[in-house]
Amino acid sequence: MYPTFQDMQDLAAQLRVDSIRSTTAAGSGHPTSSTSAADLMAVLHAKYLRFDWNNPKRLSNDRLIFSKGHACPLLYAMFKAAGAVEDHELMLLRKNRARLQGHPNPRVLPLVDVATGSLGMGLAIGVGMALSSKYVDKLNNRIWVLLGDSEMAEGSVWEAFDKAWTYKLNNMIAIIDMNRLGQRGPTNLQWDSAAYANRARAFGWHALEIDGHDIGAIDRAYDYACKQTDRPTCLIAKTKKGAGIDEIADQDNWHGKALPADMAERAIKALGGVKNRVFPTQPVQTSVPPRTVPLGPAKLPAYAVGTKEAVRKAYGDTLAALGTSIPQLIAVDGEVSNSTYADVFAKAHPERFFEMFIAEQCMVSVANGFAALEKKVFASTFAAFLTRAYDQIRMGAIAGATMCLSGSHAGVSIGEDGPSQMALEDLAMMRAIYGSTVLYPSDPNQAAQLIQQMTELEGISYVRTTREKLPVLYPPTDTFTVGGSKTIKTSTQDKVAIIAAGITVHEALKAYDDLQKEGISVRIIDAYSIKPIDKKTVHLAAKECSKIITVEDHWPEGGLGDAVLEALSGKDEIRATVLKLAPKNMPGSATPAELLDAAGINASAIVKAVKAL
Amino acid sequence: MYPTFQDMQDLAAQLRVDSIRSTTAAGSGHPTSSTSAADLMAVLHAKYLRFDWNNPKRLSNDRLIFSKGHACPLLYAMFKAAGAVEDHELMLLRKNRARLQGHPNPRVLPLVDVATGSLGMGLAIGVGMALSSKYVDKLNNRIWVLLGDSEMAEGSVWEAFDKAWTYKLNNMIAIIDMNRLGQRGPTNLQWDSAAYANRARAFGWHALEIDGHDIGAIDRAYDYACKQTDRPTCLIAKTKKGAGIDEIADQDNWHGKALPADMAERAIKALGGVKNRVFPTQPVQTSVPPRTVPLGPAKLPAYAVGTKEAVRKAYGDTLAALGTSIPQLIAVDGEVSNSTYADVFAKAHPERFFEMFIAEQCMVSVANGFAALEKKVFASTFAAFLTRAYDQIRMGAIAGATMCLSGSHAGVSIGEDGPSQMALEDLAMMRAIYGSTVLYPSDPNQAAQLIQQMTELEGISYVRTTREKLPVLYPPTDTFTVGGSKTIKTSTQDKVAIIAAGITVHEALKAYDDLQKEGISVRIIDAYSIKPIDKKTVHLAAKECSKIITVEDHWPEGGLGDAVLEALSGKDEIRATVLKLAPKNMPGSATPAELLDAAGINASAIVKAVKAL
Repeated sequence: MYPTFQDMQDLAAQLRVDSIRSTTAAGSGHPTSSTSAADLMAVLHAKYLRFDWNNPKRLSNDRLIFSKGHACPLLYAMFKAAGAVEDHELMLLRKNRARLQGHPNPRVLPLVDVATGSLGMGLAIGVGMALSSKYVDKLNNRIWVLLGDSEMAEGSVWEAFDKAWTYKLNNMIAIIDMNRLGQRGPTNLQWDSAAYANRARAFGWHALEIDGHDIGAIDRAYDYACKQTDRPTCLIAKTKKGAGIDEIADQDNWHGKALPADMAERAIKALGGVKNRVFPTQPVQTSVPPRTVPLGPAKLPAYAVGTKEAVRKAYGDTLAALGTSIPQLIAVDGEVSNSTYADVFAKAHPERFFEMFIAEQCMVSVANGFAALEKKVFASTFAAFLTRAYDQIRMGAIAGATMCLSGSHAGVSIGEDGPSQMALEDLAMMRAIYGSTVLYPSDPNQAAQLIQQMTELEGISYVRTTREKLPVLYPPTDTFTVGGSKTIKTSTQDKVAIIAAGITVHEALKAYDDLQKEGISVRIIDAYSIKPIDKKTVHLAAKECSKIITVEDHWPEGGLGDAVLEALSGKDEIRATVLKLAPKNMPGSATPAELLDAAGINASAIVKAVKAL
Repeated sequence: MYPTFQDMQDLAAQLRVDSIRSTTAAGSGHPTSSTSAADLMAVLHAKYLRFDWNNPKRLSNDRLIFSKGHACPLLYAMFKAAGAVEDHELMLLRKNRARLQGHPNPRVLPLVDVATGSLGMGLAIGVGMALSSKYVDKLNNRIWVLLGDSEMAEGSVWEAFDKAWTYKLNNMIAIIDMNRLGQRGPTNLQWDSAAYANRARAFGWHALEIDGHDIGAIDRAYDYACKQTDRPTCLIAKTKKGAGIDEIADQDNWHGKALPADMAERAIKALGGVKNRVFPTQPVQTSVPPRTVPLGPAKLPAYAVGTKEAVRKAYGDTLAALGTSIPQLIAVDGEVSNSTYADVFAKAHPERFFEMFIAEQCMVSVANGFAALEKKVFASTFAAFLTRAYDQIRMGAIAGATMCLSGSHAGVSIGEDGPSQMALEDLAMMRAIYGSTVLYPSDPNQAAQLIQQMTELEGISYVRTTREKLPVLYPPTDTFTVGGSKTIKTSTQDKVAIIAAGITVHEALKAYDDLQKEGISVRIIDAYSIKPIDKKTVHLAAKECSKIITVEDHWPEGGLGDAVLEALSGKDEIRATVLKLAPKNMPGSATPAELLDAAGINASAIVKAVKAL
């Protein structure tokens, strides 16, 4: 049931008209970035996109990602053309509480899978979806990604090109809407389609240069792309920004501006007027149900008290165990799986591990793509290098994506490698992510339970792990829950409560012993859940001890100390003296013990602080 | 005065021996990643590098960046060969307080210009240096960047390739040490040098594939690269990881491991033993002194009280004014200069403005490169998109680089564009940067003064600007200083102190009027300096009002509220009730007023909170 040439032309005109109408009604938005891609999307919609509009989340649907999220008036117009959004709703674009926001967001609009609007992310998210569809669910759907030419300057795009080639993702098709004009003027490459094609080919893709306003050419290019079996295809479509709006087509200074009413009226008239025709898309092919039967129960790893183990090791062991009980569990890593211990999972479940090489932005976006297709995904690298993907994490949170992140080698305690490898801002960064959960276990048995619970959480969850092998503190039978804490030492005589997490719990325990010898009783709280923090226990400590020392292997800003201060403030405040111990100077290379000492967060610093209080 | 073939071979052997010795002495480090590039660096050192070792910061020196920072034992061995570091110091590698850290850091070692160790940044920093040398200082020195093959997976590398071509940086030479092995196994492209060359060429560079252990071939390649006048050159050098250590050359599982003493001894013997020969580098060419004469005094812009203006506009106006008095002032922007208003500077001083297109990582690294060559650099984009470059900002702070960053369009108050364009975590992110200054002006006259003061600050400074045009609050004659605040409304009757910043100052003033009508007196503090926060004023407010409401257009974590809580805690704590007003739910698209209302940070929310207290 294929559309005629006239159908596609009519659809293109309707998409243009609706892009103009909705933005003019909103008084803002991106009509010109929308109309440039209208012909490309009309052919896709009418002849190639295989989509079940009654079930937009169906795994066997084709996927369409507007990486140039600001062109969403066009996407929303397609939704109207599909009969999935009413014309009335289209006219509410960008209005308060509208589902049709200024950039697409699945949090409110289930017709889209991911949030875009920070440029250069859509292709990498598409890589995640293509991996999920091709290798995990073994479906033959396609992942279409519409990119702007401006965003080709983002390195994250080339990370995605690289990975799509590595994994032979012939189910991916990238469409570059080369309209020559960015926000403030011409793009770097303007209409040099050969340059884009050369770059795409150098990264292992098929590439075709086409006229993005020639419906026949677009049709032939899609047909070619759909037939490729060895690698993905990139179409570089020469277009005019504002195409179809004759007064301003290919003119500068029209980025992100709605047309005034009179200009809109003239353009709509020239395009044939307002239409409300429904254009069917292609039917979805029979889907193979994804594997949902567990291989067996999860047997969490257990570590004997008295032995030593690194918390990061528990990450890999736990992930491997969970992979047995959760068939949708996927792990990705940034070429450090022998350090993060993601390689334990990779060995146990090689078909569900995807190496992202040193491309952290791509890694997180790929995780986002997996998450959008119902996978439970863990992404790991050194905690320091998650800073590379902060924008991607932020966008995942905006979308309401559920992703589990693991950052290893946190803090000055990594030792000799020096500050570039230390994460001293990751807690601040992750706490400031909307709806996030931030965990920082001190012990491998504790870590195993918390990581298992991460698979039940919604939104972005983060576990910070330590490099060093440290004594196992808790038997596997102890229980730990997200939002909880563990009061390890307590008495009615406690003068000060020491709230620690991760490696500083071990230092606090040493300090406890030293202070006991001098007859000073202190409370030791292992605050392994940084967000949410265990407010109840913090309050109790404030009430009973009135003095609190927080100690953390993280800059003073935004970490454990601030979480404790926040817990004590606000409507149900409890007043207590809170002293934060945290590194204050830039560390160098040295042994972990020397660096913990220099940072003033080791046992002797804690003892000194207790005495000073 | 050119070296013989034998000289270069001898130097290569000495560099290998010293790389092995220092890492074995340290018990950790990267000997194999060092020896793979020893021949490449020997030829560079002896025959091409033009460097004044008595004045490593001399602008006309060639620059050498080890983007693969973990190979620094090789770099340090070159310093010894140059006579700039003693053998004794080499043996202190990675030891406590050593200048020779696990990754190069100019904070302690002035022989290097920038910190590396987070991969994929060196080339973009090199672009900044090449721009500075070629276009600002008009020198004919060269920027050499040694890259690892693993880091070619980082998108930031391709952003740098793109910009180096755009700006015709024939003074740049990239050397890829293609040793085939990453941390956990083979790289994505292994020894496919043609693939790297194709990618480099597609991005506009000259590219040569060479044998990285053939001194003659290296020599010819450098000679070719130095003669290019139109574009930069990339050399893809096929090498063996651990080359020269016969027992482990080209073997997996030797990444980041020091050789055991016996193995080291055998390797050193085979390489001809320990040598302490000094190898001269080439002399520096006569340098043209950079322009240091101001064009005139800075005449800060002035805005009349009663008119309306956006703080972001003050950013551009001020920068343009400062450009007249500070000849070293450079501005870079991420293709949004008409939104950040960096375009005002670009029009006033076009020769000192560099468009980075939509490549925020590259933008910040380029700023770091300028900073390393004595420029005063401002980098601007939407505050939301600075999250894209958090790793680069972090690394800049580690290096002790001085960079001024500007993030516009902060907060829910941007309105209809929706959450992807809002920065709601930038204050948390920037506060957690070591040594940072974080400013958030509410008024254009205030902004002008603070931005002027940013040019005097060391380290990373950040100014957050608002999209909306708002009433000018202060006359240009009022003074504002970093670390200060402005108490706008105060009386002895104040029941509550409202601490606001940026757009919420305007809401707080509206709340003040409403509360006055009801006879409720509140103090209004404009905390435009978030870090350092004005502790004295916060303390005074706590003492005199005992109740504080903070109100900010930022997630509750890590921003103004936490800065106030921190100011009140610690050794000189002052107890007060602190209530934080901040957005708690994910915003959508709507008008600024609707979003401020939904976020609970507008005047009526403040009034309500005051009454509740």
